[in-house]
Amino acid sequence: MGALEDIRFVEEMALELSADCGSDSGAGSGSEPEPESNKEIEEAVKVLLQGLGEDHEREGIKRTPFRVAKAFRDGTKGYGQKVKDIVEGALFPEAGLENTAGYAGGTGGLVVVRDINLFSFCESCLLPFSIQCHIGYIPAGHRVVGLSKLSRVADVFAKRLQDPQRLANEICSALQTSIKPAGVSVVLQCWHIQFPETQKNNLDPKHPSEFEMQGWVQSSVCSSSGVLENEGNSFRDDFLSLLKFRGINVDSGSSLEYWCPSRSLKMSKSGVTQSAMISAVASILQSLGEDPMRQELLGTPYRYVHWLMNFKKSILEPKLNGLSLRSINSPKRIGGIHSELNLPFCSQCEHHLLPFYGVVHVGYYCEKEEEVIERSYIHSIVHFYGCKLQVQERLTKQIAETIYSVVGRGVIVVVEANHICMISRGIEKIGSSTATIAVMGEFASDRGSKALFLDNISKSTASWG
Amino acid sequence: MGALEDIRFVEEMALELSADCGSDSGAGSGSEPEPESNKEIEEAVKVLLQGLGEDHEREGIKRTPFRVAKAFRDGTKGYGQKVKDIVEGALFPEAGLENTAGYAGGTGGLVVVRDINLFSFCESCLLPFSIQCHIGYIPAGHRVVGLSKLSRVADVFAKRLQDPQRLANEICSALQTSIKPAGVSVVLQCWHIQFPETQKNNLDPKHPSEFEMQGWVQSSVCSSSGVLENEGNSFRDDFLSLLKFRGINVDSGSSLEYWCPSRSLKMSKSGVTQSAMISAVASILQSLGEDPMRQELLGTPYRYVHWLMNFKKSILEPKLNGLSLRSINSPKRIGGIHSELNLPFCSQCEHHLLPFYGVVHVGYYCEKEEEVIERSYIHSIVHFYGCKLQVQERLTKQIAETIYSVVGRGVIVVVEANHICMISRGIEKIGSSTATIAVMGEFASDRGSKALFLDNISKSTASWG
Repeated sequence: MGALEDIRFVEEMALELSADCGSDSGAGSGSEPEPESNKEIEEAVKVLLQGLGEDHEREGIKRTPFRVAKAFRDGTKGYGQKVKDIVEGALFPEAGLENTAGYAGGTGGLVVVRDINLFSFCESCLLPFSIQCHIGYIPAGHRVVGLSKLSRVADVFAKRLQDPQRLANEICSALQTSIKPAGVSVVLQCWHIQFPETQKNNLDPKHPSEFEMQGWVQSSVCSSSGVLENEGNSFRDDFLSLLKFRGINVDSGSSLEYWCPSRSLKMSKSGVTQSAMISAVASILQSLGEDPMRQELLGTPYRYVHWLMNFKKSILEPKLNGLSLRSINSPKRIGGIHSELNLPFCSQCEHHLLPFYGVVHVGYYCEKEEEVIERSYIHSIVHFYGCKLQVQERLTKQIAETIYSVVGRGVIVVVEANHICMISRGIEKIGSSTATIAVMGEFASDRGSKALFLDNISKSTASWG
Repeated sequence: MGALEDIRFVEEMALELSADCGSDSGAGSGSEPEPESNKEIEEAVKVLLQGLGEDHEREGIKRTPFRVAKAFRDGTKGYGQKVKDIVEGALFPEAGLENTAGYAGGTGGLVVVRDINLFSFCESCLLPFSIQCHIGYIPAGHRVVGLSKLSRVADVFAKRLQDPQRLANEICSALQTSIKPAGVSVVLQCWHIQFPETQKNNLDPKHPSEFEMQGWVQSSVCSSSGVLENEGNSFRDDFLSLLKFRGINVDSGSSLEYWCPSRSLKMSKSGVTQSAMISAVASILQSLGEDPMRQELLGTPYRYVHWLMNFKKSILEPKLNGLSLRSINSPKRIGGIHSELNLPFCSQCEHHLLPFYGVVHVGYYCEKEEEVIERSYIHSIVHFYGCKLQVQERLTKQIAETIYSVVGRGVIVVVEANHICMISRGIEKIGSSTATIAVMGEFASDRGSKALFLDNISKSTASWG
């Protein structure tokens, strides 16, 4: 299905749904949403949990609707904020800065703030993405703005459903209007998690899972106004030079047609069996103060549901009975321990309905070559337990128990993960990272073997994150 | 004066002051302070501004009391927060985790969250410091805690006046009490800005300024309980291994007597001429819900005022008339441009009363060797304009204008700075960075020379930050 058909399809679908969720009430962006609309979002999340085959009264996910609603609300609070309120009172008179241009008058020059850390919800798939924002402006009218206000204004627009280029444009335009400088330029470097390619039955060792999320989709965008607008302009050269001091290189433009990986999902009407879930997502958009009929949002409910359905309960049959020990040529033996390191995985946090992903390291005792388990089998076990609503602690335990049931003597499992729900708190572009460890059988008493295995992980060059 | 005398001195001073600020009302930590107490803090900040020789009605600093009060209040909001409220509802039942120890039952193992980014106000000097926090715990009682709650509990204690070791102890003890796990361990890596050594008249080129803030004071601390308490314990080994995966090495303990550099300031009663300012700071401590008579806080008002007084208006006489052009052997000439790169500076942001610091790069046209200005003179100019309440834009302009008045033909000045007020928003340990540029005379039209100079900065290995 081509892009045009795609659009036609999502438009049809959206029209069908608009009756359900009452999108003709015309709730646009800008007005502060009512606090009670969190309840509506919570109800919609319950529909999503049911669609995933879960009991929303189960202890672990009982408060998930509350948490998801809160995260969506906090992450889109920019709809209720006004740039004027932020900038007002933070414009300071400074001598020597003329009205018209940067260094007219001699010394009023470019001001650049680099490495402002933000995050947004992607308007195409509703997953959060991470942003490094760099802003330059040339003061005019004998006034400068408090430096922290640049990041606060940027955050007003980041806290909406966004696309990198529109976000850059909105920040740039708001600063131009509110500060009235000689020029503004905004550069964003954005990182979006990968989507799993397709759902495969990857318990077949001949076709190991593609369900990996290594690396990020990266996009750099730029938006400029005033004297910073023209490429090759001297002020613009200065701006790019000052970014380069911190290792920030501005691409000439991304070659991606769509930056969000969900946009390359094939849509098919026949595949849409989750219309209740799709309606629920459309109603969330509306509760957040968005218009689900806005062109860019038309396919969003479908894409978000498509993503969620990767983690439907029991979507994989437990075919682990077929698990066999077989001889392979493996160089990864240390002492009597066989190690499989850096097995990639992606799972879905049941507390926040957001992915966590990373690598699994497995070690087990194995004296003979016949006792080695093929890497693809272990990967299948990881995939099986990852593809559902999870918590990292339980995932670690389940993988360990399953392998222990086969190998008997002793197993150690370490799971290292980034939780996307941590993006909003994060340092770097990935936030903090979580490690869990499960130890069974002889590993619990054999400290030397355990230390050897952990040391081996340290040495392996894990490229996750 | 030795440490003991120091303590006696601050105790005496504190007793004298306690009458002024009414510290006998017994305001301890824990109770939510009244909102109107922000007004008291604002009044105290006005006293500080007056003590610095400033007019607190001046446009640029009119709202500084408001901003400083808000920053102190936000940065100490942990006094009003309860760990119980955070953890309640975030303890999830998980099978397989026994009551007593980590891998009893086979699989209940260590959970580690690494690289939680926090900041605190230093209880010794009231400047913020930056923290990377790493927490490990071993679930017990068949329940795990939501991962994000570990960082939220840590933040409750970070948002108080703190010292690294006490912060680690308080986080550890709160988690042990609220989650009741088999054990908890907390590792903090903390960074504190350097203090300028002493106030010198550094306009004497024979004794260039020591007023530099390169590098950070770093301290690593650890606090543990339960089965993670004993060094050499197997669980503890696991914890240290999982930290090592992310390059985190736990020191065996810092050798610093005091980690805050202000603690090595020599105190002398004769030097205390700012008793109104010191009383004002003591009243701020009280408004924040602290007890200014708490042992660790006794010298804090003195130290904070001592720090502020580095930036008293006109503390340096403008001796720039003595500025001379003189011949030196300098290899830093590119074309007809002479460059002085990476001149360190520290200044004080007049909007937040917090330092910003970094490096200044200066370029100017100079055809003959006799026209070269000695580096120490340029450094003196930088120091002269840095040592007062400033904004980075003005500092840049003033340095450019002063040098232009001597060299005539053309000057370019670039200032790169970290603003400590950005620590609270920051990625990495330093937050975002700000660059400003001023261009005068022929540099404004000579794009080639400007590009050459900027390129040269990129290539110089600035070690600031």
